[in-house]
Amino acid sequence: MRVLVIGGCGFIGSHVVDHLLKSGHRVRVYDRRPEMFRPPLPQVEYIAGDLADTAQIFEAMSGVDALIHLASTTVPATSNLDPVADITGNLISTVNLLEVLRSSSVGKIVYLSSGGTVYGVPTTDPVTETHPLHPISSYGIVKVAIENYLYMEQQLHGLQQVVLRASNPYGPRQGHTGIQGIIGTHLWRLARAEPIEVWGDGSVVRDFIHVHDLARLCVQAAEADISGCFNAGSGSGASIAEVVETIRATVGGDVQPVYKPGRNYDVPRVVLDIQRARDALGWAPTISLAEGIAETWDWVRRTVDKTG
Amino acid sequence: MRVLVIGGCGFIGSHVVDHLLKSGHRVRVYDRRPEMFRPPLPQVEYIAGDLADTAQIFEAMSGVDALIHLASTTVPATSNLDPVADITGNLISTVNLLEVLRSSSVGKIVYLSSGGTVYGVPTTDPVTETHPLHPISSYGIVKVAIENYLYMEQQLHGLQQVVLRASNPYGPRQGHTGIQGIIGTHLWRLARAEPIEVWGDGSVVRDFIHVHDLARLCVQAAEADISGCFNAGSGSGASIAEVVETIRATVGGDVQPVYKPGRNYDVPRVVLDIQRARDALGWAPTISLAEGIAETWDWVRRTVDKTG
Repeated sequence: MRVLVIGGCGFIGSHVVDHLLKSGHRVRVYDRRPEMFRPPLPQVEYIAGDLADTAQIFEAMSGVDALIHLASTTVPATSNLDPVADITGNLISTVNLLEVLRSSSVGKIVYLSSGGTVYGVPTTDPVTETHPLHPISSYGIVKVAIENYLYMEQQLHGLQQVVLRASNPYGPRQGHTGIQGIIGTHLWRLARAEPIEVWGDGSVVRDFIHVHDLARLCVQAAEADISGCFNAGSGSGASIAEVVETIRATVGGDVQPVYKPGRNYDVPRVVLDIQRARDALGWAPTISLAEGIAETWDWVRRTVDKTG
Repeated sequence: MRVLVIGGCGFIGSHVVDHLLKSGHRVRVYDRRPEMFRPPLPQVEYIAGDLADTAQIFEAMSGVDALIHLASTTVPATSNLDPVADITGNLISTVNLLEVLRSSSVGKIVYLSSGGTVYGVPTTDPVTETHPLHPISSYGIVKVAIENYLYMEQQLHGLQQVVLRASNPYGPRQGHTGIQGIIGTHLWRLARAEPIEVWGDGSVVRDFIHVHDLARLCVQAAEADISGCFNAGSGSGASIAEVVETIRATVGGDVQPVYKPGRNYDVPRVVLDIQRARDALGWAPTISLAEGIAETWDWVRRTVDKTG
């Protein structure tokens, strides 16, 4: 089938594109910028544009069977600084997108939501998809609202929609700006011989999913004749201290994090139950944290030599 | 205490103002328009303005202890026609309001949400506050998002907030435009000797709460040292056919509704469980449907003679 990937030049998007091509699909990418770490792929059709430009997105939908929406103008750590920009940039843009979708050929949408923020402070461990949604960041609130508009679109207009509530993705091609993804951030800093920083005492537990596993799930969700909401995690948790330890074992040498005060939007522990995706899609994560960190470190070292 | 009522000139707002005054509070009202059915009250301070005018709302908050937010720029039946206007007019305005609230004297907010839309199609009967939120109208989705921003404000900035998920309010001073509230709409039409219309076969069940009971709950919620989310219903359901029958018994004469096709956003049955509000606030509804319809009919007849 022909698939349009909105945000297809980002960290996760670039891997989704790879997996789509590997699975024999035709790929069109809509993104604001080209990929950061590799040149454009010859077999992919790229369209440069903003998520807010609904008319151009509608043009990009021409002949497309399925849409994978990975774009976000905000990140959890900063969304509370300007919730209105979050609402405008993500919620309103996506609601406009859904409206034009009705008169397009697209019958399926896969949307990347956020398992780390939509549940708020979890009251169960692990967290299933039926856990109440009590987000405490604008990022999470907007994700929930978009999930609800997708569900409404399914109920009222028959759109097939899959929401993937991703945990913490990491892996090659994760950016090094330091605002999202502690594994990538730590490895980039170590590769540049800079100190790494930990917010809080290292006891915060997260569910780290390798981007290959997540990208494969996105493609399987687009292919499957199914609607619904699925957690997308590794199935197990790791504390920040354990991550630092694994990084230390991989990188070797002296890795001493600088501890900083915790942040009030950091939830103590989020580990996602992924049984629903296993059952419905036959999907399972395959890459362990140690393997994934080793692979990512390998990529960071090769890349830092080229980009400085 | 001094209370600011946003939307205090509307149907529900006018009764909230009455109950606040009766309870000895000082009342300031912020609304776009004056009340429709009575002149301004001399003991109330009125400020004319729009929900989107955050600077003016901030001025109106001066010296205020508690805020009751009843304003909505949309109604369930029409919100899906323009979801972006719904998001802009209600969600963004309220998020802006919450931001300026932080630097005001207001320590408490009561927000009127919608028990008829936030749950979507209920899977339990009656519906408790822990029922999953799967709205299928933009109105309900925006209400959920506002509830989430209120909860976040409580968690991160210590605001005391009460969300009241109202069922279907009815009673004197309900408008006669016919877009909201079937009891008021039917009675107004009958008073004008016009035929009444029923969407669907009359089997749809709703939970009708008299506006006096709801207004009293708003005031008790503002007074109580409490945060949380509460259903605000009558505790029992009535089908549209039963409502028509009660109206027939009250009005007398020939009441023959014209049946029209059902609407795709109409949920078949919503009856709210109100135990949480009973327990936490010692509140209970006191006015039966038959009493309430009789009182409303009395008011409509007196009013139609004056307004034509």
